[in-house]
Amino acid sequence: MKKLVAEFLGTFWLVLGGCGSAVLAAKFGGDSNPLGIGFVGVALAFGLTVLTGAYAFGHISGGNFNPAVSLGLVVGGRLPAKDLPGYVIAQVLGGALAAFVLYQIASGNPDFHLVPAALDDHSTAGAFASNGYGALSPGGYSLGAAFLCEVVMTALFLIIIMGSTHRLVPAGFAPIAIGLGLTLIHLISIPVTNTSVNPARSTAVALFAGSGAMSQLWLFWVAPAIGAVLGGLIYRWLGDEATTA
Amino acid sequence: MKKLVAEFLGTFWLVLGGCGSAVLAAKFGGDSNPLGIGFVGVALAFGLTVLTGAYAFGHISGGNFNPAVSLGLVVGGRLPAKDLPGYVIAQVLGGALAAFVLYQIASGNPDFHLVPAALDDHSTAGAFASNGYGALSPGGYSLGAAFLCEVVMTALFLIIIMGSTHRLVPAGFAPIAIGLGLTLIHLISIPVTNTSVNPARSTAVALFAGSGAMSQLWLFWVAPAIGAVLGGLIYRWLGDEATTA
Amino acid sequence: MKKLVAEFLGTFWLVLGGCGSAVLAAKFGGDSNPLGIGFVGVALAFGLTVLTGAYAFGHISGGNFNPAVSLGLVVGGRLPAKDLPGYVIAQVLGGALAAFVLYQIASGNPDFHLVPAALDDHSTAGAFASNGYGALSPGGYSLGAAFLCEVVMTALFLIIIMGSTHRLVPAGFAPIAIGLGLTLIHLISIPVTNTSVNPARSTAVALFAGSGAMSQLWLFWVAPAIGAVLGGLIYRWLGDEATTA
Amino acid sequence: MKKLVAEFLGTFWLVLGGCGSAVLAAKFGGDSNPLGIGFVGVALAFGLTVLTGAYAFGHISGGNFNPAVSLGLVVGGRLPAKDLPGYVIAQVLGGALAAFVLYQIASGNPDFHLVPAALDDHSTAGAFASNGYGALSPGGYSLGAAFLCEVVMTALFLIIIMGSTHRLVPAGFAPIAIGLGLTLIHLISIPVTNTSVNPARSTAVALFAGSGAMSQLWLFWVAPAIGAVLGGLIYRWLGDEATTA
Repeated sequence: MKKLVAEFLGTFWLVLGGCGSAVLAAKFGGDSNPLGIGFVGVALAFGLTVLTGAYAFGHISGGNFNPAVSLGLVVGGRLPAKDLPGYVIAQVLGGALAAFVLYQIASGNPDFHLVPAALDDHSTAGAFASNGYGALSPGGYSLGAAFLCEVVMTALFLIIIMGSTHRLVPAGFAPIAIGLGLTLIHLISIPVTNTSVNPARSTAVALFAGSGAMSQLWLFWVAPAIGAVLGGLIYRWLGDEATTA
Repeated sequence: MKKLVAEFLGTFWLVLGGCGSAVLAAKFGGDSNPLGIGFVGVALAFGLTVLTGAYAFGHISGGNFNPAVSLGLVVGGRLPAKDLPGYVIAQVLGGALAAFVLYQIASGNPDFHLVPAALDDHSTAGAFASNGYGALSPGGYSLGAAFLCEVVMTALFLIIIMGSTHRLVPAGFAPIAIGLGLTLIHLISIPVTNTSVNPARSTAVALFAGSGAMSQLWLFWVAPAIGAVLGGLIYRWLGDEATTA
Repeated sequence: MKKLVAEFLGTFWLVLGGCGSAVLAAKFGGDSNPLGIGFVGVALAFGLTVLTGAYAFGHISGGNFNPAVSLGLVVGGRLPAKDLPGYVIAQVLGGALAAFVLYQIASGNPDFHLVPAALDDHSTAGAFASNGYGALSPGGYSLGAAFLCEVVMTALFLIIIMGSTHRLVPAGFAPIAIGLGLTLIHLISIPVTNTSVNPARSTAVALFAGSGAMSQLWLFWVAPAIGAVLGGLIYRWLGDEATTA
Repeated sequence: MKKLVAEFLGTFWLVLGGCGSAVLAAKFGGDSNPLGIGFVGVALAFGLTVLTGAYAFGHISGGNFNPAVSLGLVVGGRLPAKDLPGYVIAQVLGGALAAFVLYQIASGNPDFHLVPAALDDHSTAGAFASNGYGALSPGGYSLGAAFLCEVVMTALFLIIIMGSTHRLVPAGFAPIAIGLGLTLIHLISIPVTNTSVNPARSTAVALFAGSGAMSQLWLFWVAPAIGAVLGGLIYRWLGDEATTA
């Protein structure tokens, strides 16, 4: 039970912090005001939600906060398959509550718009920090590029997670590697899909971002899931032999 | 006694560094000069005051530097209630001295104004790094949004603090999690309230920022206190059972 | 065998993440849109590829991801000379695959150009994150300045690597020092050569960046190799006596 | 002897990396090109020189890289007084060599000017990353403000150094606290004095920045020295009793 609460709270924090920084602070003041945090700030925020959440909740639930990560860890032999459904439900619910709270805060600004001004040349791309491809990609990237990008990024994310928590690595550093790994993934791929690698995060904000984001949500379940399985399998092979050699 | 000096010095550093970076460097040179550190730099500075202060003073006083944190740790069972009044007084005094020193440095610039140029469309919002809501919110957020934001952010901050200092987490990493957690909180919420989560920090700069900031100061005692109690209670339940299971 | 796969994957990640952030996100939206990650974001991304890769793969292969580093470690007495050829080949192949994947993603944007808009006053300087000097230096730096810069940066990089993995340094921190050391190197030297210090990284993107980058590729093998040998020799002398004194 | 070489190399790296990032990359491309690293990037670079240098050289020489730090550690009881002269000489020479190398690299750019364009409204303020007050302060801060700022910042720096290396703090984290502490100090005070807290760093670039910087160099020996003595005394009192209580 406490494991599920930990996953719920951790995913709440991931969505509130990561998507919150994007919605509230990324482009504060508009083009003429360089105070906004930009993609660097958003990338840092997403990573720090996981870094802090993993130190706070990791010893309780493992600190997944992400259905794709939980799936990859099942494939990789690190999480019992029977835990997967509960984890995924807790993660989706936690993310959804965070999106609700974020919406309450954001709409307390009389100038609040779902679509950030910076992206208004792509209709509703990036609305409420939602993920998308094609017309809903921040940079206008195609479905194929978006799919490839999410698969590769999620695969590497799983490899980092499994590698940095490997028993041959000194204890305590994994949250740094995993959190900053998520920062890195955002530094690369926000322009492509607004960066998901996390179906719970994508689902949470799609609930508030309008029909466009919902119609593309399938990709942000399928591609991260494929990437996570790939990453889990690769590291299962790579890590095990290294430890027994 | 040394505990109180440590809390005094740590809160001095938090206010001097965090508010100092905001007042001196956030918008250096104005819109036409992109050298200023912006909200990312200020967020980083606040977090690093706590990261460095926690390594320097944590083994002496616990490294709270924040009345809300001390209150939350009392509720969470980590700080004796009898220490609370002394800690709070030391924190408020340390912060106030820092604001005084900062004012001396800042006013050594002939162009010094209490109100940063970037925010001049909101009268005195953000003056001398003060916190505010409504007309004194950097982004014009309502009282309700500001209150909700401060409660939620402080609650999560307490959860990160108690989680990362839990006895099942390897020793030494907590200052990284807590400091970067405060960075994260600023990345999200500077536009909403200029980010407090710390009544001592809010009080310190309100003393110099004029009557507007003083009239709104109540919120930055009440909301962080409520959030800290919530966070302390949540983690007390979450962390204890996990450790006894 | 697993060592070579680890070096292959780690260099894949270094090129995909470091060069990917430069190609996809450095100047998102152009001059009028301050969301792009700039040189700070690219510097952070390069460093985080190594930080995360070293935690994930370091206990398997040592986490070199760079032919110059492997050479320097041979000279410094940390890597058996017989491992060098395999490591270098795996690194070059991993980097090349990453450049291929990055090209697939990047060209999914209908506005994709090899040359970033910010650098269009230097013809093809920095095309597809390639390294260069003279007309192909981002800032127009001469061959001599570029050579000196790459030698010195690589020498210091080796000293950081050997120093932070020295047996007198507490275990587990080296990936932080080495990764953030690479971030630092990029913060200094992107304007000079677009920063290599890594022949595999330079080769990978030169394959896609056109003939200009290929014609200057020699420098990004020769200068990092000289620097790595210098650094390896310096620390071999410095570190050994310190440990036996 | 190796201690002196370590201090020489570490200060070389501090000046080359910190001042190098300022000279080469802070304002790349000018106002119309937002790729430059700005004060955030320079602050990060200075901090990372110390973080990486402390991991690489700390176990050899203690990793001071700064005459004020060495003086403060003597006062604080952490460094034998007889080591001070040699350390200071090695630090000044290492910094001077770095400034020479940096000058060689920087002047390989045909557009190189000593004075960064961003600061050209203050005649030669900040030339070649030099420190200054009054007309040579980046933001035009008075001598008094500059003096106060350097004293307070150096005092806190010493407190962070002595605190994070205290025997009650888990080993290995000090370079993170100290390095990021220097980043924090730069985030606050670059506008005031271009941030010294280090006489060797100030001397090194003053040699190349022209007579203005040389005529003000006294302040960047005197103020950091006073601050370091204060910080050393404060922590000597604070830390000792805490450890014996």
